Amino acid sequence: MQAQAHYDYLIIGADAAGNSAAGQIRRRHKEATIGILEKGAIISYGACGLPYAVSGKIDSIDKLIHFTPEAFGGRTKADVLVGHEAIGLNTDAKKVQVQTEHGALEIGYGKLLIATGAAPIRLPFIDYAHPGVFELKTVPDGRAIKSYVASGKVKRAGIIGAGYIGLEAAETFREMGLAVTVIEALDRAMPRLLESQSNQIANQMQKEGVEFLTGVRAEAMHSDGDGIVLTTSAGELQFDLLLVAVGMRPNTSFLDSSGLALDKGAVVINQKGETSLADVYSGGDCALVHHALLGKAVYYPLGHTANKQGRIAGVNMASPPEQQLEFAGVTGTQVFKFFDTAYAATGLSAAEAAANGFEPVEVSALRPSKAGYYPGSGKAKMSLVFDQKSQQLLGAFYSGPLDSYAMIDAASALIYKKATASEIAWMDFAYAPPFAPVWNALISAAGKLLGDE
Amino acid sequence: MQAQAHYDYLIIGADAAGNSAAGQIRRRHKEATIGILEKGAIISYGACGLPYAVSGKIDSIDKLIHFTPEAFGGRTKADVLVGHEAIGLNTDAKKVQVQTEHGALEIGYGKLLIATGAAPIRLPFIDYAHPGVFELKTVPDGRAIKSYVASGKVKRAGIIGAGYIGLEAAETFREMGLAVTVIEALDRAMPRLLESQSNQIANQMQKEGVEFLTGVRAEAMHSDGDGIVLTTSAGELQFDLLLVAVGMRPNTSFLDSSGLALDKGAVVINQKGETSLADVYSGGDCALVHHALLGKAVYYPLGHTANKQGRIAGVNMASPPEQQLEFAGVTGTQVFKFFDTAYAATGLSAAEAAANGFEPVEVSALRPSKAGYYPGSGKAKMSLVFDQKSQQLLGAFYSGPLDSYAMIDAASALIYKKATASEIAWMDFAYAPPFAPVWNALISAAGKLLGDE
Repeated sequence: MQAQAHYDYLIIGADAAGNSAAGQIRRRHKEATIGILEKGAIISYGACGLPYAVSGKIDSIDKLIHFTPEAFGGRTKADVLVGHEAIGLNTDAKKVQVQTEHGALEIGYGKLLIATGAAPIRLPFIDYAHPGVFELKTVPDGRAIKSYVASGKVKRAGIIGAGYIGLEAAETFREMGLAVTVIEALDRAMPRLLESQSNQIANQMQKEGVEFLTGVRAEAMHSDGDGIVLTTSAGELQFDLLLVAVGMRPNTSFLDSSGLALDKGAVVINQKGETSLADVYSGGDCALVHHALLGKAVYYPLGHTANKQGRIAGVNMASPPEQQLEFAGVTGTQVFKFFDTAYAATGLSAAEAAANGFEPVEVSALRPSKAGYYPGSGKAKMSLVFDQKSQQLLGAFYSGPLDSYAMIDAASALIYKKATASEIAWMDFAYAPPFAPVWNALISAAGKLLGDE
Repeated sequence: MQAQAHYDYLIIGADAAGNSAAGQIRRRHKEATIGILEKGAIISYGACGLPYAVSGKIDSIDKLIHFTPEAFGGRTKADVLVGHEAIGLNTDAKKVQVQTEHGALEIGYGKLLIATGAAPIRLPFIDYAHPGVFELKTVPDGRAIKSYVASGKVKRAGIIGAGYIGLEAAETFREMGLAVTVIEALDRAMPRLLESQSNQIANQMQKEGVEFLTGVRAEAMHSDGDGIVLTTSAGELQFDLLLVAVGMRPNTSFLDSSGLALDKGAVVINQKGETSLADVYSGGDCALVHHALLGKAVYYPLGHTANKQGRIAGVNMASPPEQQLEFAGVTGTQVFKFFDTAYAATGLSAAEAAANGFEPVEVSALRPSKAGYYPGSGKAKMSLVFDQKSQQLLGAFYSGPLDSYAMIDAASALIYKKATASEIAWMDFAYAPPFAPVWNALISAAGKLLGDE
């Protein structure tokens, strides 16, 4: 597809936020021209499903791809321009500088959405071009890992980083029969979770045969005849495959001279998705997001948030003032699966709450996940953070069976609506033996604050 | 155990409400005398688990029994008096008339809790003493059905009533290999659910080989050499086993001359659990319960509500005025399993909402239960009832995979907190492929009210 010199609406990035925006714009303006730039060849894919597509639990990586560029372009009557990388932005001239394999060009815009997402943080001493060294963010990443393991040469996988991508990959590699070592510079996995949850994850790793090295820094790599040698603060480790998963950074380096306000690399936006400059919007993993409880923007890149921010930005780019939307923001809800256990969190930890002017108090309840006598009932733990004075719910942390994770959604709703412990403790949540006990871990934990035993 | 002539706290009924109250009273008064009367021999059992214990999914019916009378009495330092049936109440003299196998006696009280529960409604033309005719409410009921089926004589089971007990029993009997016919006088199963849900249940019955006769009234029974003959408005039906499950009625006939206010047989109580007469409290399936959304009492007997009402009554019976609790009430949350599908509801249907002065509007979303590409992802349907003017959430109805039922709990929380569609549509609910899609059925349905496609 040939780029036009100008689009009424130009979107940089054809994934969750960008495509969500395109749909909203087209609903509101049947005739406007919409261009979508994508530096790669693949748009609109479920990055969060990659660990399961690599392991084969999802039988084909292709299933993660929601739309081809042609299909999405047809659906939204937009020009989806793959192989088009934004390399600069001139907001005075309202033009984006673009690099393609055929050379550079400039594309003008009426309104612009920056939805370039995030990329894995790179460690300077890692040779990412070395065979067996991988990241896990894109469909090509997933395909490369899968075929590399399928070659049969891989016995030992090393993972740098015990965040959720590193842990999901650890599960994946164990399911593929590899020896797995996870190296974490901090003293525990998933530092956003409670320490008790991190301990539970560490115990699971031991049970599942995953070696877990905490407080160990990777420092250098080289290769020898027997594979990849990773030098760490705890000595040399030898792997056939090395996955680096040490966090994400916004894809915004092309904006450095644009004059756009950034915060540690993330695009600063308000609740409408507007940036610091006129007619330029942003959303998704390249941007900040408003936190409903803190009342300020934070960097919290997650796929479901990107979808919402893209939709909001698209609505606002294409709507008159009286139809503009303000995003109420996130509570920071997340869940991930680690073998047979779900870990979920929403809102603030006690430390975050204290740092933001609350007086936190934390209570926990460990309860059966279904009626105790029902087969498959496990142990569900809910820890709640309340403000001591107002008794308002500030945060919730769940660990337990996969099929009871959704009490984190009830907790998120309760945080939005500023519910108190004495309200939550008596709420009417569904009970039947195959689903939940009479008092589930969420209401029981709230009851603890009121003195229940 | 020998009854005393007087107890500081006397409780009639040793199950969910009564035992919950006893625990709260004992926590507050170490020295008070507590007596608990139970007409049967078994206390404190999970009646809701009976269908699964009959089928053998729960391997022993004994597992449903939480405490023996001795154990519970020891734990709460209460006299648990089994085989003691309350047959009258004199509130002037503050005495309960009690029948035992050894004769009648009177027991005085300082404060009284009526927690006698409910019993299955009986049809006048059914011979409940006939072999093969059953109800399913008590542990002896469950044992009798299980051993009757185990005898091998049973091939054809008839169930009168397509409420949740009848439907759970239908699943149970199919799992035990019986031919099953469900007879329902109304035109659909589970009339508290949406008609679309009732239709889904009817489709499931067909798929699972359960014969379902709607609009058919049972009228008479007799037996012939080949089993039980049930005469219905659609002709004669022949069964080896007949289960009657046509609803519950409060166990309150002993109160008829007590002067206590009843409403269609249910004890009238306020949000503190107080009845119309001094020092007499009630809660559980024999009593009304406050509805949080309607602001008035309704009859809505469910086990988890009984536990809460018992706790509230116990706290208030044993506490000074400044420590009294008022129950905020129920939203009417329920869930039940029918084969591989969960049906759940909370709040008001459109018809109930209209009857209570709201202007209801109903919206629905059918969404994948997990990421669409993740194995085991099913179809989750959420229907929401909003008030048109205020956009406040009034009711929610879920049908879908068992492990996504808990969005009904989030909906219940949102009803309590008077959330609106424009709040719900953007809420931050957990997303990860093994758990949920980016837009789950709850937020998608709320979005429908706002014009989302």
